[in-house]
Amino acid sequence: MKFRNFPMVPRVLFGRNSFDQVGELLMPLRRNSEAPYIFLVDDVFQDRPEVTSRIPVMFEDRIIFISADEEPKTAQVDALVAMIKTAFDEMPSGVIGIGGGTVMDLAKAVSLLLTNPGSAQDYQGWDLVKNKAVYHVGIPSISGTGAEVSRTTVLTGPEKKLGINSDFTPFDQVVLDPAMTGGVPKDQWFFTGMDCFIHCVESLEGYFLNTFSQSYGEKAYELCCEVFTSDELGLEERQNKLMMASWHGGMSIAYSQVGIAHALSYGLSYELGIRHGVGNCMVFDHLEKYYPKGVRKFKEMKDRHEIVLPSGVCSDLTTEQMDSMTRVALSLEPLWENALGADWKQKITEKEIHELYQKM
Amino acid sequence: MKFRNFPMVPRVLFGRNSFDQVGELLMPLRRNSEAPYIFLVDDVFQDRPEVTSRIPVMFEDRIIFISADEEPKTAQVDALVAMIKTAFDEMPSGVIGIGGGTVMDLAKAVSLLLTNPGSAQDYQGWDLVKNKAVYHVGIPSISGTGAEVSRTTVLTGPEKKLGINSDFTPFDQVVLDPAMTGGVPKDQWFFTGMDCFIHCVESLEGYFLNTFSQSYGEKAYELCCEVFTSDELGLEERQNKLMMASWHGGMSIAYSQVGIAHALSYGLSYELGIRHGVGNCMVFDHLEKYYPKGVRKFKEMKDRHEIVLPSGVCSDLTTEQMDSMTRVALSLEPLWENALGADWKQKITEKEIHELYQKM
Repeated sequence: MKFRNFPMVPRVLFGRNSFDQVGELLMPLRRNSEAPYIFLVDDVFQDRPEVTSRIPVMFEDRIIFISADEEPKTAQVDALVAMIKTAFDEMPSGVIGIGGGTVMDLAKAVSLLLTNPGSAQDYQGWDLVKNKAVYHVGIPSISGTGAEVSRTTVLTGPEKKLGINSDFTPFDQVVLDPAMTGGVPKDQWFFTGMDCFIHCVESLEGYFLNTFSQSYGEKAYELCCEVFTSDELGLEERQNKLMMASWHGGMSIAYSQVGIAHALSYGLSYELGIRHGVGNCMVFDHLEKYYPKGVRKFKEMKDRHEIVLPSGVCSDLTTEQMDSMTRVALSLEPLWENALGADWKQKITEKEIHELYQKM
Repeated sequence: MKFRNFPMVPRVLFGRNSFDQVGELLMPLRRNSEAPYIFLVDDVFQDRPEVTSRIPVMFEDRIIFISADEEPKTAQVDALVAMIKTAFDEMPSGVIGIGGGTVMDLAKAVSLLLTNPGSAQDYQGWDLVKNKAVYHVGIPSISGTGAEVSRTTVLTGPEKKLGINSDFTPFDQVVLDPAMTGGVPKDQWFFTGMDCFIHCVESLEGYFLNTFSQSYGEKAYELCCEVFTSDELGLEERQNKLMMASWHGGMSIAYSQVGIAHALSYGLSYELGIRHGVGNCMVFDHLEKYYPKGVRKFKEMKDRHEIVLPSGVCSDLTTEQMDSMTRVALSLEPLWENALGADWKQKITEKEIHELYQKM
């Protein structure tokens, strides 16, 4: 297959407070009263009854709150799947993720592992999944990751941080309700929005780009700039537009790839547990050499919103830690190839990566 | 359902000469050697072996050439379905449309009518289809209509020109190969491209617009302007970008609607058989009052490409003909409501419509 046959999310519902339609969506797809819907919900909502009371729980359905303090792990997926299999005789009617990128990725991975044997770590890579997932729905409550539309679910395993990339990974249904993003703290709003912005820069500046991905990436880039630099948008419009930026930014990866910021950020996550959004920003802030225009724009937005990035996180690392981070970053070969071309190994050295990390 | 749960094309393959991958796509979905693939192919390709020789015909598969000189008709759909049912004992494995909007719409309608009883005219309207269609694939060979991504198939019936709008209408697979659009004559390239441009103006200026549709519509509008007014694009880039404009333009209708140009153009098609693309242009050229900025841009593009629109087509019409056209146009209530608001009936009169038609 020369060009990829890209799987799109087959159903999308967009609208402020469209969250109230979730019950109506799920009803006809419930197999029977013993086959529950499992709601994986970011635990920030645990004390927000204005959201939890609207989750349409019936019969044996279960809400499981998920902490997004750490990046999602393969062991966490395995534990959730084991718990669901033990608690219920029947296969669930579906898995619904309500949260940010962590919860989106867990919902996708759990739905895959309910129908595929073994551990989540067995499927980290490209096209290793054999069976269709359980019906799964994504309801993002923060905008930027693109996890709602992508064909991957990024997990940290015992050996690597890598996605389960497969045609069975994308959600069967996505509900885009910008009102769900109302409670996000400012720093997190910025870091996650910048995940989208950085996606777009890396995709648009990459070697893999084609016109399909370019058109989505350009629109997402433009929406990010509008949201983070315009004085004219009201709060609701900012929420609406950032949700669409995330969607288009995710689509822009269809025929493209991310690049250096994501590769180095994966290293930070793997070794230091730094979360993806802030990690991307910490790296991108030092990539003027590779993405001059994008980094300039990024610094402008960072200053405008008075964001202070963590610093000095790599100053006391052991040689082993630095080598491990570098190994993880360099293992993401498609990202480097997209950023620097087929001869990327001639263009980047371990020393340069160490120097970049040491600035952070 | 307050917000529509929009069905997206679940698989899309984009790339120059991706047409060569069609065989590989179809192979695993063939039910058996007696269940043929039916290729509906625009008859402009009849004498172009460089295309026809690449259609992956096997076993009992059949190529049916379709004239796109006229807009697609419900009777034509019924005749094709009857012919296929007579010729084959088994239900086809799939229907593949290769052509412009006419062929796209016929492929969608035939695939629906193979599994739904009665005549195509029984399903003109909204959500009247009960059964899933046969697997159907769209391969556009001209860009602009958005038929490759829409949930409608517009047909002229004995009583009306109206789409079969349903969740079963969208293609299961779309192949976007910009190289397929290489042989389009200039006038047709312009008229069909302007179908997209006019979509976007009507969607972006309409009352139904939300942020989802806006983001797609803005991108498609921008791509149209680039393709039709930039000196910097090479031929291939123009083809690539116009194909993406059509795609995004079609998506922009998801939560929106077209408007006055489409309503009046439907009247022209129904009564005078004027094709959709050129009809839209003939109408839009006179809609300064409603879409001032869009019409200005349109005239600029028209002049730049030295396009001469037909004129005087309504000068010798009988009162009956004029009334019939006006009736068809006014029957498209959602289009008027989108253009003029809920009180649209207070804002447009039959006399104004007659006056507009008389300019054409």
